[in-house]
Amino acid sequence: MPVGTAGSVKSLTTEQLKALSTQDSGLRTGPEIILCNTYHLMLRPGIDLLQRLGGVHRFMSWDRAILSDSGGFQVFSLAAIRKVREDGVEFRSHLDGSLHFLSPEKSIEIQSRLGVDIAMAFDECPTYGLSRDDVERSMQLTHRWAKRSLAAPPATRHPPPALFGIAQGGVYPDLRKRSIEEIGSMDFDGMALGGIAVGETKEQMFDVINTASPLMPRDKPRYLMGVGTPEDLLDAVAAGMDMFDCVMPTRNARNGSLFTSSGKVHIKNAQYADDQGPLDSDCTCLACRTVSRAYLRHLFVSGEIAGLVYNTIHNVWFYLDLMRKVRQSIASHSFAAFREAFLSQLTREHE
Amino acid sequence: MPVGTAGSVKSLTTEQLKALSTQDSGLRTGPEIILCNTYHLMLRPGIDLLQRLGGVHRFMSWDRAILSDSGGFQVFSLAAIRKVREDGVEFRSHLDGSLHFLSPEKSIEIQSRLGVDIAMAFDECPTYGLSRDDVERSMQLTHRWAKRSLAAPPATRHPPPALFGIAQGGVYPDLRKRSIEEIGSMDFDGMALGGIAVGETKEQMFDVINTASPLMPRDKPRYLMGVGTPEDLLDAVAAGMDMFDCVMPTRNARNGSLFTSSGKVHIKNAQYADDQGPLDSDCTCLACRTVSRAYLRHLFVSGEIAGLVYNTIHNVWFYLDLMRKVRQSIASHSFAAFREAFLSQLTREHE
Repeated sequence: MPVGTAGSVKSLTTEQLKALSTQDSGLRTGPEIILCNTYHLMLRPGIDLLQRLGGVHRFMSWDRAILSDSGGFQVFSLAAIRKVREDGVEFRSHLDGSLHFLSPEKSIEIQSRLGVDIAMAFDECPTYGLSRDDVERSMQLTHRWAKRSLAAPPATRHPPPALFGIAQGGVYPDLRKRSIEEIGSMDFDGMALGGIAVGETKEQMFDVINTASPLMPRDKPRYLMGVGTPEDLLDAVAAGMDMFDCVMPTRNARNGSLFTSSGKVHIKNAQYADDQGPLDSDCTCLACRTVSRAYLRHLFVSGEIAGLVYNTIHNVWFYLDLMRKVRQSIASHSFAAFREAFLSQLTREHE
Repeated sequence: MPVGTAGSVKSLTTEQLKALSTQDSGLRTGPEIILCNTYHLMLRPGIDLLQRLGGVHRFMSWDRAILSDSGGFQVFSLAAIRKVREDGVEFRSHLDGSLHFLSPEKSIEIQSRLGVDIAMAFDECPTYGLSRDDVERSMQLTHRWAKRSLAAPPATRHPPPALFGIAQGGVYPDLRKRSIEEIGSMDFDGMALGGIAVGETKEQMFDVINTASPLMPRDKPRYLMGVGTPEDLLDAVAAGMDMFDCVMPTRNARNGSLFTSSGKVHIKNAQYADDQGPLDSDCTCLACRTVSRAYLRHLFVSGEIAGLVYNTIHNVWFYLDLMRKVRQSIASHSFAAFREAFLSQLTREHE
């Protein structure tokens, strides 16, 4: 899922986002779902306004699916001051210091008023480095909030969104196990692993994923929140995960860090000044089809907005294309071979 | 002509620029020509590189026409330090202080190496407020440089670009008259009025245009450089001018100042926060077809790059559409009525 923080996938118009689709034997593959942030949207433009305007789909003119996070992660990572109580979290906006409150009921109400297709249960996302006791206490709060999220009444007359639960438990295998059992016993439509990629090492992260995945419900989508690099996605798919969101393709694009089939390209580097070749000769995105590395470098070093747009088109396309190939290889029982070939090309040519 | 300063029309990919075309009874109307700045391109990425890369068309993947200015205007408005001599101008780059030289021969050489379709003669553009004597001296230099521009040898084997002369003369009617006669007597493919919109009042500007236009060659395109607002364009067309370039649609878009058929909209204003209507209900651009004023305001106040893209799409479309209607009304002998209706709608509803 490309991340559309505040109602737009950074740097792209909705039409450009839709144009990242391809037609493969009649089947549209492309961005079928994006993620929006409850925290950002509730602060600006605000939920009352968004509901009056017909919800996020209409607001951004996007007729495909939207998943919203619960707001929890941003409250714990962005908000200026926050007070966590049993009933919910009081916090001040990082934009203007205004006071706000989120609880399981409030979060579900907001997400259903946004008109999204998949809502997330409201959780507490503990920072990395907390003691086992602190993580356990936080996890138990997340479990109580999960029950309340499920029981929260729908706020609109429309069909309510699907609701995913979030398992926490930090880097502690026994806590992860308990959290997955607890959340798995509730009537959610899917299950997410939260509290991942929050500061732990890559090894710790995959220890958690490999511990967690076999315990997760086999008949529901498994969503790994906030991950990750192309290599991470392949490893996580190998571990059994289905869904991902990450700001990396859009954020890196704005920093000139571009993903290619032979490794990362830092487009501002002088070596690309005279490079007439496409960014990635294996790629068929608009940027790779129409302009050179030399042009992309020129736009980037000149601070041209169009450079950010080309970069974003490429990076998001690269991720979508990777996941398309993953799905194809799974369908043809050749995922392991695909993964190995992809990783070996990355490693072999990595600059 | 939309302005593509450094090889991109600000905020737009080349594909987005091309998508601003419409099909009217089989005839494509849209951006058929853009302007690029010799000064900017010679400093970055540099002419040797651009020539190696196959010229500006290929660099930016643009297969329609390009007009380049001569570099003169930017040397006189942007360069850090400059020394004007009979043979040319020595100046320091505003980017890194590096030393450069432009002369009629050098400018024509560069423009032909860029591979553009229309090149401009190298002129001196005097700032507003100079004495008649100073403007006259500068004009005479421009005339000598014009002759040298015409005589400059082509730098490439390709067919050389068409070459337009530039008449100067400031706000002094007799100087303008002399300059037009002088430049008009030379074998240029078109004639431009330079030194316009450089600080003089609107009244002075139109005094110059109205004095100049009847004296300009009737069988060659007449290009009014650096103008202007939609009202200015209509008035200048009424005075007999054919071609224009201006950064206003792209620059204003980035500042949230949007042109509509009922006047300017400053999209950041709170009054648009809840406004579900399109930016301009008379407009059929992508922004007006797909999103609301509320969304455009939200993107702008949130600092979303997509907001700049939507704004630019709209403003450039507005200008192109205005000129399309101008051409249609001229063809159907109803320009005066069209102009009156357009201006009266602007004035009536202007905020």
